[in-house]
Amino acid sequence: MSVTAAKGFVAAGVIAGLKASGRPDLALVVNSGPDAHAAGVFTSNRFQAAPVTWSRQAVADGRLAAVVLNSGGANACTGSAGFDDAKKMAEWTGAEVGCATDDVAVCSTGLIGARLPMDAVLTGIELAAQDLANTGGASAAEAILTTDTVTKVEVHTSPDGWTIGGMAKGAGMLAPALATMLVVITTDAVVEAAQLDEALRTATGFTFDRTDSDGCMSTNDTVLVLSSGASGVAPDAAEFSEALTGVCASLAKQLLADAEGSAHDIEVRVEGAATEADALAVARAIARSNLFKCAIFGNDPNWGRVLASAGTVPADYDPEHVDVAFNGVRVFVDGQLGADRSEVDLKKGREVLVEVNLHAGDAAAAIWTNDLTYDYVKENAEYST
Amino acid sequence: MSVTAAKGFVAAGVIAGLKASGRPDLALVVNSGPDAHAAGVFTSNRFQAAPVTWSRQAVADGRLAAVVLNSGGANACTGSAGFDDAKKMAEWTGAEVGCATDDVAVCSTGLIGARLPMDAVLTGIELAAQDLANTGGASAAEAILTTDTVTKVEVHTSPDGWTIGGMAKGAGMLAPALATMLVVITTDAVVEAAQLDEALRTATGFTFDRTDSDGCMSTNDTVLVLSSGASGVAPDAAEFSEALTGVCASLAKQLLADAEGSAHDIEVRVEGAATEADALAVARAIARSNLFKCAIFGNDPNWGRVLASAGTVPADYDPEHVDVAFNGVRVFVDGQLGADRSEVDLKKGREVLVEVNLHAGDAAAAIWTNDLTYDYVKENAEYST
Repeated sequence: MSVTAAKGFVAAGVIAGLKASGRPDLALVVNSGPDAHAAGVFTSNRFQAAPVTWSRQAVADGRLAAVVLNSGGANACTGSAGFDDAKKMAEWTGAEVGCATDDVAVCSTGLIGARLPMDAVLTGIELAAQDLANTGGASAAEAILTTDTVTKVEVHTSPDGWTIGGMAKGAGMLAPALATMLVVITTDAVVEAAQLDEALRTATGFTFDRTDSDGCMSTNDTVLVLSSGASGVAPDAAEFSEALTGVCASLAKQLLADAEGSAHDIEVRVEGAATEADALAVARAIARSNLFKCAIFGNDPNWGRVLASAGTVPADYDPEHVDVAFNGVRVFVDGQLGADRSEVDLKKGREVLVEVNLHAGDAAAAIWTNDLTYDYVKENAEYST
Repeated sequence: MSVTAAKGFVAAGVIAGLKASGRPDLALVVNSGPDAHAAGVFTSNRFQAAPVTWSRQAVADGRLAAVVLNSGGANACTGSAGFDDAKKMAEWTGAEVGCATDDVAVCSTGLIGARLPMDAVLTGIELAAQDLANTGGASAAEAILTTDTVTKVEVHTSPDGWTIGGMAKGAGMLAPALATMLVVITTDAVVEAAQLDEALRTATGFTFDRTDSDGCMSTNDTVLVLSSGASGVAPDAAEFSEALTGVCASLAKQLLADAEGSAHDIEVRVEGAATEADALAVARAIARSNLFKCAIFGNDPNWGRVLASAGTVPADYDPEHVDVAFNGVRVFVDGQLGADRSEVDLKKGREVLVEVNLHAGDAAAAIWTNDLTYDYVKENAEYST
């Protein structure tokens, strides 16, 4: 059900003709109210795509009535003409669905550095507006995919009568702050914009920001949350925040599980750190090591590459007293050789848990990543983004 | 001729039986004087291998009489027992060649986290000591190889009668500060230890430190320079420094050209930076982008991935006014689309020059890297280091 699981939302996904494959490539999500509260977080890349520049402005006042999304072109690094294109998409959408231009967010994904074929985009917006339905969530989720092989959707329903639903795309350039992707989340809970914003920042901080597929940061990352208030129920703030974090965590794990060409889902968990920032820095360094990621692809619990990566981080710990475990087998203990690596079997399934204990404090954090495979190279050598 | 090109040095490379392949795996380089000056630079990884810990101490007084090197095992993350092994290698070498234990540097490369088979190592040292010859440079250069496919050697001869010769190994984990590898350089110029140290730091700063194959930093990186003074000629300091930098640059480029599975040699040159540090930071971010490196493997001049990487760096520049060129073709000019990417042909040869102009000042710097290929993944999934 995705973005139409919550009451007060309609959506559609159509073929606008932007993708050479002829697959669906344009989506609309419309909030029919009564509220039109919204919040967003965006890429921290300094080369931000035109739709990011536009949407950041649009959501600044805490209001959104609609989101228009396209795959088949990122509209990034396209200069002022590209910004005009993004604005035109908002204008056209506002005119079709009956809301102000400034209440429309725009998301684009695909090749960087090419203008969008605007005739096709605008015709697609008209088509999608005609298709809007409260059953349109699945079509919308499909229309935003690029190299993704499956749609990513998640729904949380509270026993109190409110719902959060979301959709996501992104199979590469998943990196921090935030993991590259487009995500639209809707809720019928009665939640003001400021509370939405706080809950969204908490949720992305614990989920998408800790998802690091290939260390590369996109120009187009966008996560939006819209509330219609249509359930009439105002949830407890902590409960809502927790539920939103849960939806984001599910979407983040789905993104990683479908990451380009990956064969293993890896959690790098660093414990015993002096601070959470230290734990994250060490976990991120390990998660970004190509040598480590190739070793996991080869089913090799190569803890030497884990340590070599950890050793590049100026965190507060003593290299003489560090432990490393792979799937629970402690292969390096207190700075000395531990169990033999042959005791670790990485061929059993996709899940790999790497635990590093720094013995420097009580803080912990994890980064989710995946392995580096032939298929990653193939997709990214042959596909232009 | 490698490390025996300069007068006053003998070397040998033998089969000690450390490598399963049965290839040569132990080398000795001995300085027969009259001087025994030396300098070294080492990995900045906090998990430094036992031989690095040993050699750092050994060279601290500016004196080395010999270097013993082995492939087939890194002796890293092996705890205090590993340190004892490294020390034993120095003792044994000192006894064989007739010098103090503290005047012997030790270098190891291969799998991290396994003890060396010391019986084989010590027997190998005896064998190598018997083989020492002033024609032994080539054998020594071969015995230090791991996944390298060719030996890396370079010789510079001054018209004034002094010579610098060097050997290097390293085909992966080439990263900054310094690029991972073992390098031994010898000279018969009359150069004091302090001058050697200064010249070596200058040389590595401009060469190995700017060589970044896969962003991964080894636990074993070592670059040593030894002077015998046997030519009797004391060179001009600037001339010697420049010649040493030239030898290091040649060895660094040979390392990259043989980097694991690479298909293109890439120079990422950033110009118009406010500071050299800014130029280096931007160049390094681009050189470490897996998406960029895969695109080059696919012969795709994907400047969007260049910008997306540059955009992660907090350097002083305005994203609206940046240029990007591939092999001289300006595909992005002043923040706008430039020449069509079809004008760039990356299939012609291995050389790729990516130029980024930040238009923020007069500083410039380059990082040398290579592409990310199927063969990189294959070697690093199947080979344990």
